[in-house]
Amino acid sequence: MSIAADVPVPSPSMPTVSSPQLVARLRAHLDGPFGPVRDHCRGLDPVTFGPPPEPLPTEEHRARVTAQLTALAEQPYAADGFPPQQGGTARYAQAVAAFEMLGHTDLSLFVKAGVQWGLFGGAVSLLGTRRHDHLVPLITSGELQGCFAMTETGHGSDVQSLLTTATLDPATDEIVVHTPEPAARKDYIGNAARDGRLAAVFAQLIVAGESHGVHCVLVPIRETDGTTAAGVTVEDCGAKLGLGGVDNGRLSFDHVRVPLTNLLGRYGDIDDTGTYSSPIDNPGRRFFTMLGTLVRGRISVAGGAGAAARSALAVTTRYAAGRRQFAAPGADVETTVLDYRTYQRRLLPRIATAYALQVAQHELVTAMDDVLSGRASSEQDQRRLETRAAGIKVLTTRHATDTIHECRELCGGAGYLWANRLAALKADTDIFTTFEGDNTVLLQLVAKSLLAEYQATFGDLDTLGIVRFGARLVGGTVIERSSARGIVQRLVDAAPGREEDVTFGIRGTQLRLLREREEHLLEGLARRLRRATAPDADAFAVFNATQDHLVEAAAAHVERIVAESFAASVEECADRQAKEVLARVCDLHLLATIERHKAWYLEHDRLSPARTKALTALVNEICAELRPLATDLVDAFGIPDGLLTTEMSGTA
Amino acid sequence: MSIAADVPVPSPSMPTVSSPQLVARLRAHLDGPFGPVRDHCRGLDPVTFGPPPEPLPTEEHRARVTAQLTALAEQPYAADGFPPQQGGTARYAQAVAAFEMLGHTDLSLFVKAGVQWGLFGGAVSLLGTRRHDHLVPLITSGELQGCFAMTETGHGSDVQSLLTTATLDPATDEIVVHTPEPAARKDYIGNAARDGRLAAVFAQLIVAGESHGVHCVLVPIRETDGTTAAGVTVEDCGAKLGLGGVDNGRLSFDHVRVPLTNLLGRYGDIDDTGTYSSPIDNPGRRFFTMLGTLVRGRISVAGGAGAAARSALAVTTRYAAGRRQFAAPGADVETTVLDYRTYQRRLLPRIATAYALQVAQHELVTAMDDVLSGRASSEQDQRRLETRAAGIKVLTTRHATDTIHECRELCGGAGYLWANRLAALKADTDIFTTFEGDNTVLLQLVAKSLLAEYQATFGDLDTLGIVRFGARLVGGTVIERSSARGIVQRLVDAAPGREEDVTFGIRGTQLRLLREREEHLLEGLARRLRRATAPDADAFAVFNATQDHLVEAAAAHVERIVAESFAASVEECADRQAKEVLARVCDLHLLATIERHKAWYLEHDRLSPARTKALTALVNEICAELRPLATDLVDAFGIPDGLLTTEMSGTA
Repeated sequence: MSIAADVPVPSPSMPTVSSPQLVARLRAHLDGPFGPVRDHCRGLDPVTFGPPPEPLPTEEHRARVTAQLTALAEQPYAADGFPPQQGGTARYAQAVAAFEMLGHTDLSLFVKAGVQWGLFGGAVSLLGTRRHDHLVPLITSGELQGCFAMTETGHGSDVQSLLTTATLDPATDEIVVHTPEPAARKDYIGNAARDGRLAAVFAQLIVAGESHGVHCVLVPIRETDGTTAAGVTVEDCGAKLGLGGVDNGRLSFDHVRVPLTNLLGRYGDIDDTGTYSSPIDNPGRRFFTMLGTLVRGRISVAGGAGAAARSALAVTTRYAAGRRQFAAPGADVETTVLDYRTYQRRLLPRIATAYALQVAQHELVTAMDDVLSGRASSEQDQRRLETRAAGIKVLTTRHATDTIHECRELCGGAGYLWANRLAALKADTDIFTTFEGDNTVLLQLVAKSLLAEYQATFGDLDTLGIVRFGARLVGGTVIERSSARGIVQRLVDAAPGREEDVTFGIRGTQLRLLREREEHLLEGLARRLRRATAPDADAFAVFNATQDHLVEAAAAHVERIVAESFAASVEECADRQAKEVLARVCDLHLLATIERHKAWYLEHDRLSPARTKALTALVNEICAELRPLATDLVDAFGIPDGLLTTEMSGTA
Repeated sequence: MSIAADVPVPSPSMPTVSSPQLVARLRAHLDGPFGPVRDHCRGLDPVTFGPPPEPLPTEEHRARVTAQLTALAEQPYAADGFPPQQGGTARYAQAVAAFEMLGHTDLSLFVKAGVQWGLFGGAVSLLGTRRHDHLVPLITSGELQGCFAMTETGHGSDVQSLLTTATLDPATDEIVVHTPEPAARKDYIGNAARDGRLAAVFAQLIVAGESHGVHCVLVPIRETDGTTAAGVTVEDCGAKLGLGGVDNGRLSFDHVRVPLTNLLGRYGDIDDTGTYSSPIDNPGRRFFTMLGTLVRGRISVAGGAGAAARSALAVTTRYAAGRRQFAAPGADVETTVLDYRTYQRRLLPRIATAYALQVAQHELVTAMDDVLSGRASSEQDQRRLETRAAGIKVLTTRHATDTIHECRELCGGAGYLWANRLAALKADTDIFTTFEGDNTVLLQLVAKSLLAEYQATFGDLDTLGIVRFGARLVGGTVIERSSARGIVQRLVDAAPGREEDVTFGIRGTQLRLLREREEHLLEGLARRLRRATAPDADAFAVFNATQDHLVEAAAAHVERIVAESFAASVEECADRQAKEVLARVCDLHLLATIERHKAWYLEHDRLSPARTKALTALVNEICAELRPLATDLVDAFGIPDGLLTTEMSGTA
């Protein structure tokens, strides 16, 4: 089969030239349900909230960001993130969508606001009880600044093993917070080095000699005059690769006493008699439930990473559309760099992926709103949200790091200059791949969730059971479908079956290929993990031997979810012109994703060598087809011009 | 065939535990012919030459680096890079090897020294005539600081199209240097914003109305008191992503007059009668010959990138060997992160590649020494050196960017802190992928060179001719063999032929697989470019359609060269214990490279799906096998401890 067979017949309504109308229509699609709040954010003064025009000395940058946070507190976004009984408006999705737009400003402000309202405010709001509600308005207004003191020097990913202790002293009804050893020091804590007055400290709660696992206690770390509180040691983490405006610090506690009421006791409290009780008996389940309430932070990080990647793509595409280098033989003018195939290949699939991730992010934020508002309240809803959030966070932060670096390279020396923003975008977002959950650890969390049903019945399954389980896996009992399952299933069902030759231009075929990969990887993983049940098996050795497989399966799952979300959104697009373009962008994202995994498809006999070669040719062709619309595609991101002022040398 | 068939029988002399003896032996191998000069550099005071402990304000950092350069001028390295008639010692290889070691200090110093001695000094030394020899000792001592003013705002990669003019005024025997338009402004010029007094300016030389193409003219840009020279405009490029200690600036010239003798006239001079003459008649050949003399800069950038990657690998491996996270079920202590498979997979193949690139770099430096000293003086020698330099520069700078980022992620928050060096290594070396030649452009240069014989006879070839040419390509007429061709050929010949099943443990088979890929890619490329000869063919369209193929072929070529160099060096290693370990490291580098391209091998029916799966399993196995030696492998880099002081939290 030739490539021609794969190329859908061009529609007469497919735009081939740039137009403001197209930009507006694409933007409407990308803004999705959050158009009003995104437009509101677009109106923020870029001088007040934008990045510093040059790198500032640490203390100046920190002071600038603190002032920006105060200015931001006058906007409605922070209050949107809290329920009415805490003085908020319970517009959770709007709060996160607005926060995502902050990703186009100085990312130090994005992180500082995330620490203050998302993490610190989120802990008080979601782990606290009625007695803590009065604090939330002070947090929303910025009057009370705080820290989220979870990570320790010795434990980042493994939160359950934190070493800090919070011990009840029944004699005084106080909790004694203590750092028993250097590895227990709270590390990399945002807002700690300069501004935070109150810290939400995660520690092992000990009552009458018994540990009840990790809980959160509010500990004052500074007096109102800014001096460090007694018993608290604050160190400054000093300079970092990026995020210079965030005052990360280290906190140690020497038997610091706080009232019992400072325990954020929603999931485990101590009564007047000094007795501990929890609505969740199982300590493991309690721990993961507490952690699960903090899912918003991970979702926000994904949003900020996506925004930063879009900023980089917009800067670079505008540069590439104006930059010329080398004249073709016989040509009067030099060639625009965006006309070169290698340039297109490096830039356009990443723009397509940015579209897909934007749509997936909005779907994620909507799912989060359902859970936080109580519309979806089952444990399964909560678990699925956590899994989805972890997965999207991994994919989007990977995409951001990869894309921003590629954009820097595509702009050469101009991309290295501070004035053109790529430098700061790169340095600031690098840490996104490892904070709010290391990406490799998060993928294991995703895989664990996918295998949850398997694990629940793990001990009892014989070989036959495993085979049956495998069958169920394919049938979709375990594999989560995206919310657009109906549309996607219709597309897949309409595509030719596996036994027929693959035609890449058919959406259902594209989606089927991604599904098949995920399912096969998960089935294989389940089979391999079965070995851990053998009587003489070293459980760690079995796990470790499959770790690379596990991580790959998880990533395949998230890629499939993102692809389905995007494909469904294109199907639902009501504007005919935008739909044509979006369909092409969707083709590019899906096919480039499949192409990236072509070794797998060949290895597993899902695609023939002739077909994978045709795939590469087709991706090239779609890049060339979308090239005239490249600037429209990035203009549709709707990033305020005031935030993208560039000094891109060589542009027309 | 099972994986077991691929695994060579472990030798009883293969070390399985760390030892200082092993480190010393591996270091001797890595130091190769440059042990003495590398040891000399290891003795430099780390306090004087090391990176600043925290990011400094721009002017402070610049002043620090200028002072470091002055201190460095007291060492013999700079003089090593020049011939005796210019006051040097003509130890070219030693100069570049020493310069590479500077890559372990502050990379701003590395770049500043490279601008002063490599680029500026190199231009005067290699493009100048006897009348410029007296300048070189002043440059060596640092008394005369200078700039290499080649890149313009409008032209970076396309140097031949520079717009700055250098016009002879025969009335006064002066050359008038002029910036005719904003795009002709010299941009990103190191040493321009603060320290440079003399600039080597590349400009179109115009004599009596006729342009002779790009030549280099010395133009004073600052008076001895530091004020800007008349007619010269200096702008500061401002802050950058990294390399804060390098004073990059922009230079514009308003009809600046310099004596005729300021023309660096080795490849094109003007006599007393105002007549231009050149030893090279063809202007294109002249241009490329002039540019070719500057190959040392590209080689040095590769060296610095390799050093930076080794610094990152050393920091990270030491961290990973001490960091523990998550306890295995039933275990008393938590697992060392280096024991996790995903961690090993991310770290160890990159260490193996660092070994391969170090060996290839030394071979490249030796080849450069042969050319600069005149021992290898044919045009073919020169061209091969340029091709090799371009290719190694691409591979090493890619490796550095990829590795340093991966290391940052592997260290989590600790890797983000300035104190642990990864932040600076990342920011400073990012630009290495695009300066001294954009990597994508350089790969095209490599491909062009590989196709040179083809192109020379391009117009005359009919289909049969192409087929014959293709055959010669496979036979090795065009494809350059590494200098270790004899050893490599013997290994390849000893391996089973293509028709037999692939056994990955056989070195000759590994090398044959890399050769086959290169040859097939080149053959296909030649066939596709043939279309450009069709009478109605759009030459640019044909070129552009093959651009991705061309870049892939070039990279495959360089990967093969690097692999062969490393394999040959292992064969030649006289120390039995070191040889065992190096052979395993070489297996890992080669097999991980083949694995990265497994889609290609499957697509071209060179490996079966069963074999590529076995390949992945084998790479995993070798990682686990080398894990106990991981710290020895990076200790063998021989990076002075004073330059790697870390505050890696969580290390034991």
